[in-house]
Amino acid sequence: MQQQMSVITLGVHDLARSRRFYVDGFGWAPVFENEDIVFFQMNGFMLGVWKAAEQSKDMARENAFGPAPFALADNVPAASDVQPAMDALIKAGGKLLKPAPGPPHGGFAGYVTDPDGHAWEIAFNSAWSISPEGYVTFGV
Amino acid sequence: MQQQMSVITLGVHDLARSRRFYVDGFGWAPVFENEDIVFFQMNGFMLGVWKAAEQSKDMARENAFGPAPFALADNVPAASDVQPAMDALIKAGGKLLKPAPGPPHGGFAGYVTDPDGHAWEIAFNSAWSISPEGYVTFGV
Repeated sequence: MQQQMSVITLGVHDLARSRRFYVDGFGWAPVFENEDIVFFQMNGFMLGVWKAAEQSKDMARENAFGPAPFALADNVPAASDVQPAMDALIKAGGKLLKPAPGPPHGGFAGYVTDPDGHAWEIAFNSAWSISPEGYVTFGV
Repeated sequence: MQQQMSVITLGVHDLARSRRFYVDGFGWAPVFENEDIVFFQMNGFMLGVWKAAEQSKDMARENAFGPAPFALADNVPAASDVQPAMDALIKAGGKLLKPAPGPPHGGFAGYVTDPDGHAWEIAFNSAWSISPEGYVTFGV
């Protein structure tokens, strides 16, 4: 199969609350939305924020919220961008999970959860290049 | 912030077992691996499969496995590719979560979980275009 992923779907309790987090906190614009789901066109794939009950039905399992072992990361252009980005997310309804260390040198990251506990790492990583379109290439 | 995500990290109990699922089941090649993590270069971002204990430590929370409300999707080129892809994942240690419906018409998808319960939707969706590089664009 093509080394490819098309969509990440996050189940949420309150779509309006989550929309605020992703639109106001990250500053992202939906590409599509209705009363059940909001889609964001990301760098080569889609992020979907979906009413949890609908998602559970579609997945044919009773999903349960909790500290799940997965994280999504948003890389920022400079180490000095990490804290302001985390602050904006918290202001938009996120919760601080792990503060970024200071002062920054090399890799530099903190974690914020969205209103439903989905974890986002806000990171600066000079080893991984990001194209103008947002495409990320592994580097060491 | 750029409408961009750099990494998805999935915590796993047994790295060798998960490596088998992603390498043999999906047929994907790691771009980097050590005893704690395997990275796959995806379409514009990285997928990291990480020892759960290390991930918990990094995230500063005690993560718990369970039916988490999130799913990742891999889109295949044709409806007839869905079932063979699901079969390959199950053979490599995945578990069937929801069979694909049949016969296919329009959207067509099933769900398989990886060995730790992380859900993958295997989907055919003719409305969303996928470039030769695997970049997905929203369509209706």
